[in-house]
Amino acid sequence: MKAFDLIIKNGLVITAADRYHADIGIKDGTVVALGQGLADADAEQIVDADGLWVMPGGIDAHCHLDQPMGDGAVMADDFYTGTRSAACGGTTSVIPFAAQQKGQSLRAAVDDYHRRSDGKAFIDYAFHMIVTDPTETVLKEELPALIDEGYSSFKIYMTYDDLKLNDREILNVLALARREGAMVMIHAENADCIAYLTELLESCGKTDPYYHAESHSAIGEREATHRAISLAELIDVPMLIVHVSGREAIEQIRWAQSRGLRVYGETCPQYLMLTAEDLKLDGFEGAKCVCSPPPRDEASQEAVWQALESGVFQVFSSDHAPFRFDDPRGKKLHGDKAAFHHIPNGIPGLETRLPILFSEGVVKERIDVTRFVALTATNAAKIYGLYPRKGTIAIGSDADLVLWDAARKSTVRNVDLHHDVDYTPYEGLELTGSPVMTLCRGSVVSAQGEPTGQAGYGQFLKCERPQPARPRGFAKGF
Amino acid sequence: MKAFDLIIKNGLVITAADRYHADIGIKDGTVVALGQGLADADAEQIVDADGLWVMPGGIDAHCHLDQPMGDGAVMADDFYTGTRSAACGGTTSVIPFAAQQKGQSLRAAVDDYHRRSDGKAFIDYAFHMIVTDPTETVLKEELPALIDEGYSSFKIYMTYDDLKLNDREILNVLALARREGAMVMIHAENADCIAYLTELLESCGKTDPYYHAESHSAIGEREATHRAISLAELIDVPMLIVHVSGREAIEQIRWAQSRGLRVYGETCPQYLMLTAEDLKLDGFEGAKCVCSPPPRDEASQEAVWQALESGVFQVFSSDHAPFRFDDPRGKKLHGDKAAFHHIPNGIPGLETRLPILFSEGVVKERIDVTRFVALTATNAAKIYGLYPRKGTIAIGSDADLVLWDAARKSTVRNVDLHHDVDYTPYEGLELTGSPVMTLCRGSVVSAQGEPTGQAGYGQFLKCERPQPARPRGFAKGF
Amino acid sequence: MKAFDLIIKNGLVITAADRYHADIGIKDGTVVALGQGLADADAEQIVDADGLWVMPGGIDAHCHLDQPMGDGAVMADDFYTGTRSAACGGTTSVIPFAAQQKGQSLRAAVDDYHRRSDGKAFIDYAFHMIVTDPTETVLKEELPALIDEGYSSFKIYMTYDDLKLNDREILNVLALARREGAMVMIHAENADCIAYLTELLESCGKTDPYYHAESHSAIGEREATHRAISLAELIDVPMLIVHVSGREAIEQIRWAQSRGLRVYGETCPQYLMLTAEDLKLDGFEGAKCVCSPPPRDEASQEAVWQALESGVFQVFSSDHAPFRFDDPRGKKLHGDKAAFHHIPNGIPGLETRLPILFSEGVVKERIDVTRFVALTATNAAKIYGLYPRKGTIAIGSDADLVLWDAARKSTVRNVDLHHDVDYTPYEGLELTGSPVMTLCRGSVVSAQGEPTGQAGYGQFLKCERPQPARPRGFAKGF
Amino acid sequence: MKAFDLIIKNGLVITAADRYHADIGIKDGTVVALGQGLADADAEQIVDADGLWVMPGGIDAHCHLDQPMGDGAVMADDFYTGTRSAACGGTTSVIPFAAQQKGQSLRAAVDDYHRRSDGKAFIDYAFHMIVTDPTETVLKEELPALIDEGYSSFKIYMTYDDLKLNDREILNVLALARREGAMVMIHAENADCIAYLTELLESCGKTDPYYHAESHSAIGEREATHRAISLAELIDVPMLIVHVSGREAIEQIRWAQSRGLRVYGETCPQYLMLTAEDLKLDGFEGAKCVCSPPPRDEASQEAVWQALESGVFQVFSSDHAPFRFDDPRGKKLHGDKAAFHHIPNGIPGLETRLPILFSEGVVKERIDVTRFVALTATNAAKIYGLYPRKGTIAIGSDADLVLWDAARKSTVRNVDLHHDVDYTPYEGLELTGSPVMTLCRGSVVSAQGEPTGQAGYGQFLKCERPQPARPRGFAKGF
Repeated sequence: MKAFDLIIKNGLVITAADRYHADIGIKDGTVVALGQGLADADAEQIVDADGLWVMPGGIDAHCHLDQPMGDGAVMADDFYTGTRSAACGGTTSVIPFAAQQKGQSLRAAVDDYHRRSDGKAFIDYAFHMIVTDPTETVLKEELPALIDEGYSSFKIYMTYDDLKLNDREILNVLALARREGAMVMIHAENADCIAYLTELLESCGKTDPYYHAESHSAIGEREATHRAISLAELIDVPMLIVHVSGREAIEQIRWAQSRGLRVYGETCPQYLMLTAEDLKLDGFEGAKCVCSPPPRDEASQEAVWQALESGVFQVFSSDHAPFRFDDPRGKKLHGDKAAFHHIPNGIPGLETRLPILFSEGVVKERIDVTRFVALTATNAAKIYGLYPRKGTIAIGSDADLVLWDAARKSTVRNVDLHHDVDYTPYEGLELTGSPVMTLCRGSVVSAQGEPTGQAGYGQFLKCERPQPARPRGFAKGF
Repeated sequence: MKAFDLIIKNGLVITAADRYHADIGIKDGTVVALGQGLADADAEQIVDADGLWVMPGGIDAHCHLDQPMGDGAVMADDFYTGTRSAACGGTTSVIPFAAQQKGQSLRAAVDDYHRRSDGKAFIDYAFHMIVTDPTETVLKEELPALIDEGYSSFKIYMTYDDLKLNDREILNVLALARREGAMVMIHAENADCIAYLTELLESCGKTDPYYHAESHSAIGEREATHRAISLAELIDVPMLIVHVSGREAIEQIRWAQSRGLRVYGETCPQYLMLTAEDLKLDGFEGAKCVCSPPPRDEASQEAVWQALESGVFQVFSSDHAPFRFDDPRGKKLHGDKAAFHHIPNGIPGLETRLPILFSEGVVKERIDVTRFVALTATNAAKIYGLYPRKGTIAIGSDADLVLWDAARKSTVRNVDLHHDVDYTPYEGLELTGSPVMTLCRGSVVSAQGEPTGQAGYGQFLKCERPQPARPRGFAKGF
Repeated sequence: MKAFDLIIKNGLVITAADRYHADIGIKDGTVVALGQGLADADAEQIVDADGLWVMPGGIDAHCHLDQPMGDGAVMADDFYTGTRSAACGGTTSVIPFAAQQKGQSLRAAVDDYHRRSDGKAFIDYAFHMIVTDPTETVLKEELPALIDEGYSSFKIYMTYDDLKLNDREILNVLALARREGAMVMIHAENADCIAYLTELLESCGKTDPYYHAESHSAIGEREATHRAISLAELIDVPMLIVHVSGREAIEQIRWAQSRGLRVYGETCPQYLMLTAEDLKLDGFEGAKCVCSPPPRDEASQEAVWQALESGVFQVFSSDHAPFRFDDPRGKKLHGDKAAFHHIPNGIPGLETRLPILFSEGVVKERIDVTRFVALTATNAAKIYGLYPRKGTIAIGSDADLVLWDAARKSTVRNVDLHHDVDYTPYEGLELTGSPVMTLCRGSVVSAQGEPTGQAGYGQFLKCERPQPARPRGFAKGF
Repeated sequence: MKAFDLIIKNGLVITAADRYHADIGIKDGTVVALGQGLADADAEQIVDADGLWVMPGGIDAHCHLDQPMGDGAVMADDFYTGTRSAACGGTTSVIPFAAQQKGQSLRAAVDDYHRRSDGKAFIDYAFHMIVTDPTETVLKEELPALIDEGYSSFKIYMTYDDLKLNDREILNVLALARREGAMVMIHAENADCIAYLTELLESCGKTDPYYHAESHSAIGEREATHRAISLAELIDVPMLIVHVSGREAIEQIRWAQSRGLRVYGETCPQYLMLTAEDLKLDGFEGAKCVCSPPPRDEASQEAVWQALESGVFQVFSSDHAPFRFDDPRGKKLHGDKAAFHHIPNGIPGLETRLPILFSEGVVKERIDVTRFVALTATNAAKIYGLYPRKGTIAIGSDADLVLWDAARKSTVRNVDLHHDVDYTPYEGLELTGSPVMTLCRGSVVSAQGEPTGQAGYGQFLKCERPQPARPRGFAKGF
C-alpha cells in the first residue's frame, strides 16, 4: 500500500499565518505529510499545483439550507444544491441552522434537520442550532445534552416575531453557554425599532423594497449590538455578532474588544459589495437585495473593509438565504407589489463568497492572504469547535483544500452558479482569482468550477466545545 | 404706594452666567429692579444681604412627594413636610411626579395629585407626569391636552414591573413628545438584568441590603442609557437621562452629546457622596442608602464630578424619595431582615441638596458658582418650561431667591432637618456654606434654616413647552 | 443731576444665561439700573429699543492691528480703522497683539504698541502679548511685571520661523503662566510639517494659492494641538487653542476636556463660511482666503458648528489680519504670481464677525442666542480677566451694548465696511440680523452701521489675572 | 545519504496560527518535512519531543549588544555572551542595533558592527540601524544602498541629546522609508518634557533613581507617540513604536490602528512585570530597573496585557540593554549616589523574555499560545523582512526551533543566566514552562538551559524590504 492516496505537488501552501511552497501528502482523507519533493511513486494519485495557491477549504459558518419557514416561503437550496454550490466556490464545510420553532423541542429540530441533510451533502457539515424557546427543559436538559453530542453553538435573535428572545431569555441562554462552554451567535437588531419604522413607513405609503433598508436602521442595529455586548459582559461569556452591516455596529464591537471583552464579529459579502441603493432597482428587482440587516452606504462598506483588515471581524460568511426571485414561494411570496416587510429576507452567496473576498480583498491589497484564510476558514473552525480537524492545512487535519488560480479573470453569472436560486446580486461582477479544484477529505468535489463529487459524501461534523465550561456564578462587572 | 415691597440690599447677585453686586427691588413677588443704591425709602421692607451671596432659589426637578405606592409603603413626606424641608434648604420650586397607574387615566393621576398638593405647599410646584400606560387614548388625547394645560414633561421607566415601558412604547411616547414639544425624562436601567441578577443573588443567599447595589449593575445602567439614547436618536427628540450614577452611563451620554444629540443628563447628591460600601452598614442600616441606581464607587464619584464640571450634566436634583427607616411602612416594610429587593427604594435629600453641592463643589473649587446656579436652578427651569419665570434673577422673574452665607460652617444632623424622614444618609457631614434666607415670590419662606412660610403659599406652576412641536414624520438617521 | 445719563428702554436684554425685557439705566458709562419702567424723566437721554435685542457689545479677543511685520508687508488697519470697523459691527472691545520680536524686550514691544494705539481707538482695547523670545529676563522679570500691570495673557506660536517656540520654551512659558496666573493662547500647527509639505509642493511646481491649504495639513494642526494639550497637562495650567479649523483638532480638544483638562478652544468665521476650495479662485483671487490654519472642508465646517453648540469652543473671534489684496505691501507683496508661502497670511473680519455668527448660528437655530453672547463676549471677558467690567449686562459693568435688529436683512459688501482692506471674503453673503447701535461705556460709537464715535475715545484696559497664581512645583500627571 | 539530518519526533508543533502533532524532518538546517511517523531510519539523529511543545525559535527584535556608548559606559554583553544567553532562553535570532554617531557615516557604523559581531554569535543575527544624522548623503546614498544590502529597518529617536531627530528630520527619514520600502522603528518620548522635568526634579533635590520614572512622564511618552503617528500618517508609511510602557501611549496606537493606519506596537517584559515602585528599592538598588520609558503602574501593566491580547502590539522584545550594577562602567558609572539622569539606562532580558511571557501569559491564560508565537517570533520576522526564512515552522524555513516543557517549574536566578550582567530585575520570579532545547538551523545551541553551541555559528541575516517601495509624492491626508 502506498504511503499517500494523493499528493498535491508544487503549490504555494497558505494558512492563517504562513505561506510556503510544499507538497502535501494525503492519506485516508487526512494531511499526513508536508514536504519538499514528496516522491510521486509514494502516491496513488498526483495533482500538480504548480503556480496555484493551496488554501484550506472554506468554512461557511453562516448559511441557511432547507430551513423550514413559517410563512409559506420555501428555501431554494437544500443540502444537495447548497453544498454543491458551496463546493464549486471553494468551500468544504458548511454550518447551517437547525431551527427550533417556538413550542417545539430543540432535539426535534435537530432530528428533523438530520433527516433533511442525510445522504445529500457534497461536503461536510455541522449544525448551529437556533434557540427560539429557551424553556427550562431546553436550558437544563436538551441544550447540555446536545452540546455534549456535538452541537456546541447556537444562534439567537433579537428580532423577528417568531424567533426573537427578550433580554431575560438572552441572559438565561448566555448563562447556559457559560456553564456549558457553548458559543452564542446573535442577530442584533432592535425588533421594536423595526416595527415602529415599518408602521411609520407603511402609513406614509412607502412600501417599495427600498424601504426595507430604511426600516432596518443602523441605529437599531447599533443599539441591539450594544445591548448584546452588555448582556454578554454581564454574564462574562464570549459572543459572536453575526452579519454586521456597517460603521455604527462596528464601533460598538471595536469598543467592546478594546475593553478586553471576548466579542467576535462576522460580516458578509453583501456589506462589501452592495448598498441600500441596490434595493432601489426598477420594479420589484430591488427585492433581490432585501436582507437583514440591509446593505448600508459606501462609508459603511469602507468601515467594513477597515474592520476586516484591523481584526474587528474574525469571520466572513455568506449568510446564504436562498429565495428565488421569480417564484411565488420566493421573493414574490406576496406578489410583485408586496410591501417591503412581506418580502422573504435573504441573499444567495455560498458560491461567490470566497471569490469575491479574494478578488476585492486580496487582489486589491485590502487584506493579506493569510487573513483571507483566517476569515474564511481558520477562525470559524476555532470559534465553533471544528479546529484542528478543519480550517487549516496541518498534519492530522482533514485534507480540505482549495487550489486557487490567483490570476484568473472571470465574471459572475448566475447561469454559471450551482445553487438553485434564479439570480445572484453580483451578476456581472468581474473577478480576479478562481478556485480551480476543491478537495474535501482528500476527495475532489469540484474541478474548474464544476461539481465532481456526489451527494452523500459529506459527513456530519460534531463540534467540540469552543470554550471551557465555567460554573454558574458571579462574573466580572459586579 | 411704594415702588418696592422689598429691597435686598448689598448682596452679591449670582446667576448662571454672572456675579455682581446689586440691590434687588421686588414688587408683587417679582424682581422689578436691579441697581446700585436703591433707595430704602422706596421699599416697605429692607433685607441687608451685605456679605451674602444672592442666588436664584433652587429648583428641585426630581423629587417624590406623597406619591401613592402600590406595595403598602408610604412616603414619609407629603407636600407640606416636603416643601417645608426644601425651603429650609434654599429651594423655591419642586417638580414631583403625578404617577399614572397602569390601567388608570393620566388625567386621573394628575387630578389626584392636585388633591394631594392643594393647600399644602410652602413653595411653588409643578408636576412631571409618570407615563406607565401609553394607550392610544393617552397618546392621542390625554397627553396633548395635558401638555397644553401646563404639564409638559413626563418621566418613563425602563425598569420596575409596575412602571416600565417596552421599547415600542418608549418609541411611541418619544414620537408624541416630538409632535407636542414635550420633554421626556427616562429612568435608564435594564429591567431584565436587574431581575436576572436579583434571582441569581437570591439563589446564592446573598440578600443583605448591599446586594441591591450588585443587582443594579453599572452594565445594566449603561445598556439602558445607550438604548434610551438610540431610541431618542431614531425619533430625533431631546431626552433627559435622570439620576445618572457613574462612569459607564456618563460615557454614553458624553458620546451622544459629542455627536450632536440633544441628550441631557441629571445626577444627584448620593452619587457624589455615597458608594456601594455605604450599603454594607451593620445590620439593616445599609437599607438607608438603598436607591436606584445605587451609588457606585469612588471612581464613579470622580466621574460624576468631572461630568458636572465639563457640562455633561445639566441638572442636579435630589431624587428625594422619603421612606422612614424604622417604620413598617418604610424601609422595614418587609421587616428588618428583608431581602434587598423588598426594601423600598429611595433616599431623602430635598433639604441637603444645595448645601452639599455648594460645600463640596463650589467651596472645594470643583465647580464654579455660576455652574452651581445653572445646575440647581436655571437649567431645570429652561429644560422644563419654567424659564424665565423661574430659575434666574432677572427683571420680570419671580423673586425666588436664596441668600447664602458662603463661609458658615455646619454639620448635617437629621434632627435639624425638616422632612419627616427619620434619617439622612449624610448624618455628620461637615459643610461650609448655608442658606440663611429663602424667598419665594418675594416672601420669606425660611430664615436661618427654619421655616417661616406657611402651607398653601406655594402655587402650582404651569410649564411651557420646552421644545418646539414638530410634525410626526421622518427624522434624521434614516 | 439726573440719575441716569441714558436709558435704553424696552429692549430684550440678553446675557450669556438670560433673556428678559428690561430698561437699562446708564450713568457715567456704567450700567447702574435694570428695571421695568425706568422713568424717562430720570435720564438725560432715552434710546427706545422696542423690538430690539440688547446684548453685551462684542469682544474681539483675537485680532491684529498695526502689527509690525518683518517681511515688508503692512497691515491695512491700524487702531483707528480697525476699531472703527469693529464698532460698526457691534464690537466694543478688541484685544490685539503686542508682538515681541526675537531679541527685543517684551516691554519694548508693549511700549511700542501703546504708541501705536494711543489716541486712535474708537472702542476699548487690551493687549495680548506675543512671546517669541522667552529669555530668562523675560520669564523672571518682564512677564511677572507686565502681568501685574494688566497684560495677563499672551500668545505663543508653534510655527512661523520668526515666532515659534520649541517645546522646552513652551514648557517654560507655561510654568511661568502657572506661577503668575496668566492665560496662554497657542497657535497650534506643526512647523516642520508645514515646511516639509511646502518644499514638497514647491518641488512639484504646486505653488498656486490653493496649495497653502495643502501645506497646512489638518494632521499637522491636530498633532500640534495634541502636543500643546500635553504640555499644558504636564504643567497643569489652563491653555486656549486659538483659531481651530476643523474636525481633527476639535477631537483632540474634546478629548482633553472630557478628561477634565482646562483646555479652551477658539474658532473664527472663516472656519464656518469658507473651505479650501475658496483658495482655488481664478488667478490670484485665492490669495484673499489665505490664512493659517486654512479653511478645510464641509465636514469640518459641520464639526465646527457642532463644537460651538456642544461647548467645545468658548470663544469666537475674527483673527482679523488685514492685508489689502491689490497692494504690493499686502497680498501681492511678492507679486500676483507669488508662490503660496510668500503670500501674507490673514483675512479681515472685525466687522462681519457678529453678523455672520448671528445670521448663520442664531437665526438658523444652530446655537442659542445666550451662547452667542457667551461666545462673542462673556467668555472672552472671563478668560482674559476683563470680567465683570466687560462682557455682560449687569449692574456695575461698563455700558458696552449692542442693539440688534434680529430680523433685518442685509448683504455683505466691502464698500459698506469700515476697515481699510480692499476686500472681504464674504462679499455677497446674505445676512439676517444687524447691529443697529453700538455703545461703548454708554456712548454711541456706531449707529445704523456707520461710525458715530471718535478716535481716542477708546481706553486701554488692564486685564486681571484670570487664574489664581500657583507656586511652581509638581503638577498632576506625575 | 539519509533524507534527514534530524527528526524532531512526537512534539506538539505550534505556529502563529496552528497547533498540531507532527514530526519535523530537518535537512541542511531547513525544515523539509512535517509528517506523521517519519521513519527513524531516514535520519542521522532523532530527538524525541514527546510531551513537549515545539515552537519557532524566538526572534528578539530589539536588543542592544556591544553598542558603543558615548559616555564611558560599557555594555556588559557582546555578541558572544548576549547570543549565548538568548539561545539558552529559546531565542534563535537577534536584531541588535548598528548605531550611527552624529557626524559618522551610516556605513561606517554598519561596518564597525560587523567587526564586533563577526565570529562571535551563537545564533543568527540581523542589524537594525540607528539613524542619528540623516544628512543628504545618508538619505540619498547610504540608506538606499544599505537597504538593498539587507539592512532594511532602522530606529530613530525622539529623545536623548546624542540620538534625537527633530520633526523635520523624522519626516525626511519617513519619506525615505516610503520610497525604499524600509521599516522605521521609533523611540517615542518627548525630549523637552524629560529635560524640563529632570531640571525641575533636580532643583528640588529629587535625584534618587526613582525620579527617573517621574522625569519620563507618561504624558511625554503619549505626546511623542501621537506625534510619531501623525508624522507617519502625513507621509503614509508604516511605523513601529518600540517599547510602549503603558495605557496612555497604547490609547494613541489603538486609535491610529482603528483609523486604518499601519502603526505597529512593541512592548517588553519590564512593562508587564515591573512598576515605578521597583525603582524605589533601598540605596541605589533602584538603578537596576532604570530604563526608558520606565515601568509605570499596575493599571498600565493591565493595559499592556490587554493590548497584547487584543492585537494592539505585534512584537514582544526584550530591549536588552546590559549594564552591570556593581560596576563603574555600568549602573555606577557616576558612583552609587549619582542623580537618576546619570544612570545608564537599560535592563537585561534576552534570556528571560520567552519564559516570562510564556508563564505569565500563556500559562495564566492571558494570551493564546499561537499569539505567543506571533508576538515572540512570527510577526517580527514579517515586519523586518526575515519571513519566511525565520519566524515559523514551515517547509523551507530555517529549522529554528525551541522545544518547550510547558509544565516545568523554575525560579529565575541570575546565577543561572548566561548573560554577563550581574543581576536580573526578575530575581526570584517563579515560572511555569521552560525551554528544554533550542535549535538554530537544525543545530542544538542550547539544552536544558545550558549553552551547547559555539561562538561563530550564528550567521548574519540580510533582511528583505518588508514593504513595497513607493515613489515619493503625495500621500493620503492631503
